[in-house]
Amino acid sequence: MPFVNIRITKENGEPTTKQKEELIAGVTELLARVLNKNKASTVVIIDEIDTDNYGLGGKSITKVRKENS
Amino acid sequence: MPFVNIRITKENGEPTTKQKEELIAGVTELLARVLNKNKASTVVIIDEIDTDNYGLGGKSITKVRKENS
Amino acid sequence: MPFVNIRITKENGEPTTKQKEELIAGVTELLARVLNKNKASTVVIIDEIDTDNYGLGGKSITKVRKENS
Amino acid sequence: MPFVNIRITKENGEPTTKQKEELIAGVTELLARVLNKNKASTVVIIDEIDTDNYGLGGKSITKVRKENS
Amino acid sequence: MPFVNIRITKENGEPTTKQKEELIAGVTELLARVLNKNKASTVVIIDEIDTDNYGLGGKSITKVRKENS
Amino acid sequence: MPFVNIRITKENGEPTTKQKEELIAGVTELLARVLNKNKASTVVIIDEIDTDNYGLGGKSITKVRKENS
Repeated sequence: MPFVNIRITKENGEPTTKQKEELIAGVTELLARVLNKNKASTVVIIDEIDTDNYGLGGKSITKVRKENS
Repeated sequence: MPFVNIRITKENGEPTTKQKEELIAGVTELLARVLNKNKASTVVIIDEIDTDNYGLGGKSITKVRKENS
Repeated sequence: MPFVNIRITKENGEPTTKQKEELIAGVTELLARVLNKNKASTVVIIDEIDTDNYGLGGKSITKVRKENS
Repeated sequence: MPFVNIRITKENGEPTTKQKEELIAGVTELLARVLNKNKASTVVIIDEIDTDNYGLGGKSITKVRKENS
Repeated sequence: MPFVNIRITKENGEPTTKQKEELIAGVTELLARVLNKNKASTVVIIDEIDTDNYGLGGKSITKVRKENS
Repeated sequence: MPFVNIRITKENGEPTTKQKEELIAGVTELLARVLNKNKASTVVIIDEIDTDNYGLGGKSITKVRKENS
């Protein structure tokens, strides 16, 4: 019955619905394999974060992307 | 001064504004009754999650709903 | 299948095991009643926070308690 | 490499992009100064919460604002 | 630069240090593979929760384990 | 009434009680200055994470520290 929260930026149309299905399936599988946890009650929540709202190294990802482009 | 985070799927027009008021009032009441906590500084945050982003048993709720319909 | 996270200070031997059972049962009941959510997959996690690590109004609860005593 | 999550209401066009940059820079600076933490891997996520979904004292902020206006 | 929070019960000496290394490596790998995310800035935090503090279906896991044993 | 969660590793006797007071005061001040938020209801929770449970770049901080020492 683990709980997993994945928080990623929303950029260029990603994550797609297919990618989100892969993340949910993949992380549930991982927990079952490593810890022998019950898949049926494993909860995964994906939060898609605007690049203005995600900071790394003291700057928003919006700013980081601009500086690197 | 407890903090409560409720994370639920957003489906078929729910949760409505009225339901969210009931959740906020209800959980604040519960904490005051069980733990004698100060209601004035109790914080409740409700996150409404897209069914594509909420996984249970290794599948998104979108997929679970389709298979059960 | 909602997910609820309750974060409260750990003070004077509280919350007790009994109080935690009441919180888990109560919040699960509330979500079932208000939103008609499935109780079986409702997950509740209670985090007990040291009063040094919980701040309100710019001070730790440890400090707030001292000033009010 | 600290992680910080800031959760604030979204009201009257705030927080603006500029305010979010200030929060990200400010909190990263604070952690570097107080704890000597590496700025490069400090992650900050800002969640903007609808006033219907943020409760204080058993009522949504939407309701609190109406009663105080 | 994704952020992942894994919350699991602490039971019978698990998760071990080795299992935690596997979870951190595995989930970082998964995000890199599915979303092409930078591994270097991927943050994973594992919270180990006492079975008294983890509720499923309205009961603590402590209680669930007793009833099933 | 913002809510802030700071998650940092617990290493070499840090964060100290004094550092935690500084973080709580500093972040509350920052939110009041940038967003004009009410200090009285600002909640800050600091979680201290074991270095075995904090991953960066696919490895636990325990492992990262060993490799860099």
